[in-house]
Amino acid sequence: MQNEPITDIAHLGHLELLTPKPEESLRFFIDIMGMTESGREGDSVYLRAWDDYERHTLKLTAAKEPGMGHMGLRARSQKALERRVEALKGTEFAIGWNDGDMCHGPAFVCQDPDGHRIELYYETQWYQAPANLRPALKNQAQRFPARGCNVRRLDHWNGLAVDIKANREFFENYLGFRLTEQIVLDTGVEAAMWMTCTNKSYDFAYTRDATGTKGRFHHVTYAVNSREEVLLAADIFLENGVKIETGPHKHAIQQTFFLYVYEPGGNRVEIANAGARLILAPDWKPIRWTEAERKKGQAWGLKTIESFHIYGTPAVPGVPGSGPEST
Amino acid sequence: MQNEPITDIAHLGHLELLTPKPEESLRFFIDIMGMTESGREGDSVYLRAWDDYERHTLKLTAAKEPGMGHMGLRARSQKALERRVEALKGTEFAIGWNDGDMCHGPAFVCQDPDGHRIELYYETQWYQAPANLRPALKNQAQRFPARGCNVRRLDHWNGLAVDIKANREFFENYLGFRLTEQIVLDTGVEAAMWMTCTNKSYDFAYTRDATGTKGRFHHVTYAVNSREEVLLAADIFLENGVKIETGPHKHAIQQTFFLYVYEPGGNRVEIANAGARLILAPDWKPIRWTEAERKKGQAWGLKTIESFHIYGTPAVPGVPGSGPEST
Amino acid sequence: MQNEPITDIAHLGHLELLTPKPEESLRFFIDIMGMTESGREGDSVYLRAWDDYERHTLKLTAAKEPGMGHMGLRARSQKALERRVEALKGTEFAIGWNDGDMCHGPAFVCQDPDGHRIELYYETQWYQAPANLRPALKNQAQRFPARGCNVRRLDHWNGLAVDIKANREFFENYLGFRLTEQIVLDTGVEAAMWMTCTNKSYDFAYTRDATGTKGRFHHVTYAVNSREEVLLAADIFLENGVKIETGPHKHAIQQTFFLYVYEPGGNRVEIANAGARLILAPDWKPIRWTEAERKKGQAWGLKTIESFHIYGTPAVPGVPGSGPEST
Amino acid sequence: MQNEPITDIAHLGHLELLTPKPEESLRFFIDIMGMTESGREGDSVYLRAWDDYERHTLKLTAAKEPGMGHMGLRARSQKALERRVEALKGTEFAIGWNDGDMCHGPAFVCQDPDGHRIELYYETQWYQAPANLRPALKNQAQRFPARGCNVRRLDHWNGLAVDIKANREFFENYLGFRLTEQIVLDTGVEAAMWMTCTNKSYDFAYTRDATGTKGRFHHVTYAVNSREEVLLAADIFLENGVKIETGPHKHAIQQTFFLYVYEPGGNRVEIANAGARLILAPDWKPIRWTEAERKKGQAWGLKTIESFHIYGTPAVPGVPGSGPEST
Repeated sequence: MQNEPITDIAHLGHLELLTPKPEESLRFFIDIMGMTESGREGDSVYLRAWDDYERHTLKLTAAKEPGMGHMGLRARSQKALERRVEALKGTEFAIGWNDGDMCHGPAFVCQDPDGHRIELYYETQWYQAPANLRPALKNQAQRFPARGCNVRRLDHWNGLAVDIKANREFFENYLGFRLTEQIVLDTGVEAAMWMTCTNKSYDFAYTRDATGTKGRFHHVTYAVNSREEVLLAADIFLENGVKIETGPHKHAIQQTFFLYVYEPGGNRVEIANAGARLILAPDWKPIRWTEAERKKGQAWGLKTIESFHIYGTPAVPGVPGSGPEST
Repeated sequence: MQNEPITDIAHLGHLELLTPKPEESLRFFIDIMGMTESGREGDSVYLRAWDDYERHTLKLTAAKEPGMGHMGLRARSQKALERRVEALKGTEFAIGWNDGDMCHGPAFVCQDPDGHRIELYYETQWYQAPANLRPALKNQAQRFPARGCNVRRLDHWNGLAVDIKANREFFENYLGFRLTEQIVLDTGVEAAMWMTCTNKSYDFAYTRDATGTKGRFHHVTYAVNSREEVLLAADIFLENGVKIETGPHKHAIQQTFFLYVYEPGGNRVEIANAGARLILAPDWKPIRWTEAERKKGQAWGLKTIESFHIYGTPAVPGVPGSGPEST
Repeated sequence: MQNEPITDIAHLGHLELLTPKPEESLRFFIDIMGMTESGREGDSVYLRAWDDYERHTLKLTAAKEPGMGHMGLRARSQKALERRVEALKGTEFAIGWNDGDMCHGPAFVCQDPDGHRIELYYETQWYQAPANLRPALKNQAQRFPARGCNVRRLDHWNGLAVDIKANREFFENYLGFRLTEQIVLDTGVEAAMWMTCTNKSYDFAYTRDATGTKGRFHHVTYAVNSREEVLLAADIFLENGVKIETGPHKHAIQQTFFLYVYEPGGNRVEIANAGARLILAPDWKPIRWTEAERKKGQAWGLKTIESFHIYGTPAVPGVPGSGPEST
Repeated sequence: MQNEPITDIAHLGHLELLTPKPEESLRFFIDIMGMTESGREGDSVYLRAWDDYERHTLKLTAAKEPGMGHMGLRARSQKALERRVEALKGTEFAIGWNDGDMCHGPAFVCQDPDGHRIELYYETQWYQAPANLRPALKNQAQRFPARGCNVRRLDHWNGLAVDIKANREFFENYLGFRLTEQIVLDTGVEAAMWMTCTNKSYDFAYTRDATGTKGRFHHVTYAVNSREEVLLAADIFLENGVKIETGPHKHAIQQTFFLYVYEPGGNRVEIANAGARLILAPDWKPIRWTEAERKKGQAWGLKTIESFHIYGTPAVPGVPGSGPEST
């Protein structure tokens, strides 16, 4: 008999991004992305988009190299969190409890097979907007900023990994994520995967690291209200001298309307439209894309830009184009 | 100790609408809304929007009076369905099993305290697009029609009820829906509620029937990709002589960008933008709107149109303005 | 034999708005509308939108009462200006030359039959963006601000007048404007008119002043890129406590997608979408709207708000609702 | 003393496109572009977009090879037409009068230095919509079709030419078009030009033919209401198997939001957004783009696709990639 699916993780809570240029990265996220600072602690600044309900969805931490510090996953309840910890404890993936970041309660730390750090938590701080950021409508977390790209909420992130299949099985078996789309090479090797624990069609993705390096970061995505706002974002990046890597265009996979840039610290950041596409089916059958299909390029024919396959953070020493250090 | 939430219902599956003008209603949904016929049986025609994954989301049935026949709720699994049936069996709400509609498996029929008919099912037919409706991208159910309003998917529906609180408790206790927003009068009486079982901020709503009549229907909503498409829909309705009741404008509650019209059979139909706003928090605290707040009108100040409070289907005999018969 | 049309006026150049709350009005136009200060002189501040090619399109002048100071019309050439002056000189409408505002050359001042002050000029200052406002693309006047409503350019303005026909004939005969649409009452009295000297469907409009007062101002309109940005503007006004009078909705006349607010000084300001509709026909036949047609309301059925018919600046003493003073 | 500018041409009236696949081209323009047939005569079908005021803006003519038959320019008046004929008569560019197409009056035929055929006319047929295509609002030419891409109006066209400077001078001196932007190579050779006789920033463009062939056609452009509709058009082309050459993206030059496809006859067709950008200045200084600037690619960094530089209609015999025949 088939087990019922694990539904203990509520959603992607936040990401910790590392940056060698903390001040410039901060200005980028506040002035250009339109985010709000909601706390500071040590070498980190906490940031949020106007529709994020938690105090933060981005922890920006000064570091020697760019990349991802960790991703935070919020459990559906305290009990749900405990069930996940129970499942992980004693495995090679478990690391152990910490006191939690400034903005949320105790977190159980683990890592995926590729070494990306994950923090599971339930207790969190709901954002309390100060008077000058209080919204006109009380069903909204914070006033619409009317500044820069006005990003609405954290949408998803994308990691690089050496063994996609191993990562997929980890997230399915230990955390209850569901695969919605994937790329499978002609050899049968899995080359990319998109997973969700919500009705969004993905909460994160992993693609194969062409350099064969573990633990690297591809991009984090913030959503805006509409495709029109993605287009406005492109103009805003252009006006502010932010390097646009590719887009706006529509992905064939997941049909996301995308726009990729590099923030000053070297990490890739995406602006995409919010949630027009939802996965409501509880028994969704993963879409499998073949090599031949991928060769057709993006939805409207754009060829995928070369850097998209190799650039990540941190750069891989000695591999040109693999990241900001080596360019 | 608090029980964990019930998460057995996956999503709103479909609605059965009754119409005294079946042929005209059918033309409305196909030619103007841009939907596709996907089956016929007896007095009913099955219809779907291009992004609906099931074979149908609308069952249009010829009847003497307009109104809602039933709403279909798809369970998350066969086991989840059985748990819900177990909970309902023997209560005053339970009616019993039937063989299911043409497009899905056996359904357990029940009714909410106000008498709206509900069918719970798990087995369903995934839509298989015929060659001429096959989409270019294989992660999509059906080709984008490029006809009329091009509605994307069933979004939610709205019922009228005499006792909102009783209905709320029924959906919370027996089906696991969560309240996201509500109107509570100064007397403490609940006047409206918005509930969800997904990450959408509501899958249905109930508002108090000003005529004190049970079981009436307020509207069904199909989502389009963007607010720009809601505006285009307004032009298309105007061009086709479809009565626009109110909108486009933005609701304060739920912040939906709305547009209401009457289909030829007299039922109210809404076009709204798709899912920019999501409820990701597993512990969302319901937003409570007061009488004073409601008096401010819609988000941008539009006064709620009078007919919105009384018009439903079917009309109430002897109550002018209460529905299509009496106008 | 028919004379050839006069084509000496190139476009509406700017508007001078009077405000009793100069500091608050200035903050409104800069912070909320997203305009840029481009000069100061005496009691006036000069402002511009990012796509305006002249140094300013709005002159904001401190005054005891709100209203319009004057409208500036730029001639097509120095010779064209001289031809218009020749035609006007010696008439009851002519006032005489002045040295011009800070941002443009000598102007010939006249007034329409209702007493609105008009300045005709040709020499002007093209905007020279300082380094921090220089755009990325050199075919653009100024960097996209990414602040507030990001208004793009001055679009048109609307005056109130007692005798619409007299005003129409003045603009046709002396300045070469063409009538594109009008309202004519059942009595044959002209009640409103929309005129253009460009391919825009109107550069200004006049509507009958219900109070029978001369020289009042109805609104000034700045255009944004898209209807989506008009909707975003509505949210921004809501968030900033700016009173939305009506909209967003679509006018039947001219099909403008409109949104009306009051700036702190009491003057009505409109945000509308830019130029999708153009009048290319050199022999356009004016559209005449009847009383019966106007009773249908706006394009999608919205009833025209009462204040729209009586509110103007300045208020008329003793007439409640006629303007900011009396409300 | 400087002469005053010639303003005798009102706007681009129509284009005659030649197609070797007349039936398939017709289906493309009607079903996918959303245009309407408004007449037939001999080997030609007349077509129009819903906001075009004349009876047609596209004449589709069966021919052995694709390409442009002629462009029609409407004069501002009969007298204006006569002035242009006077100027042209006796020059190498003049061909002579014909009776005019089915939808307009007598035309004076001439050709530009590169051999593109031009017809000047004034008398025309305003479109009279039949009952089923009559719009709800009387200031609109025809009902919004709600079919395919719903193109709004003819916007501009683009020719290929061997000597851009010669063509520019012809249009300036004989027809009064104004140059708004141009590409000038480091050698001083003009490589492309955009010209207007309206407030649109261009009514046509010419780019250098890399094959050195005279009289070829690059593309015709129809405008839609918004960038969102350009994006929808991309999906509609994708769904209908229409080859997307490049886009949607934003041109640096003229800032047009573009999308290029090939119609079945092989001619390139563009969908672009309507007129947000207007040239109101009567003394606009042409923007000159250098080779270095062009190397930066399009506005948001997209590299201009190779075929864009060589593909035209008809193909040049023996030059691979120069058109549909040779591919």
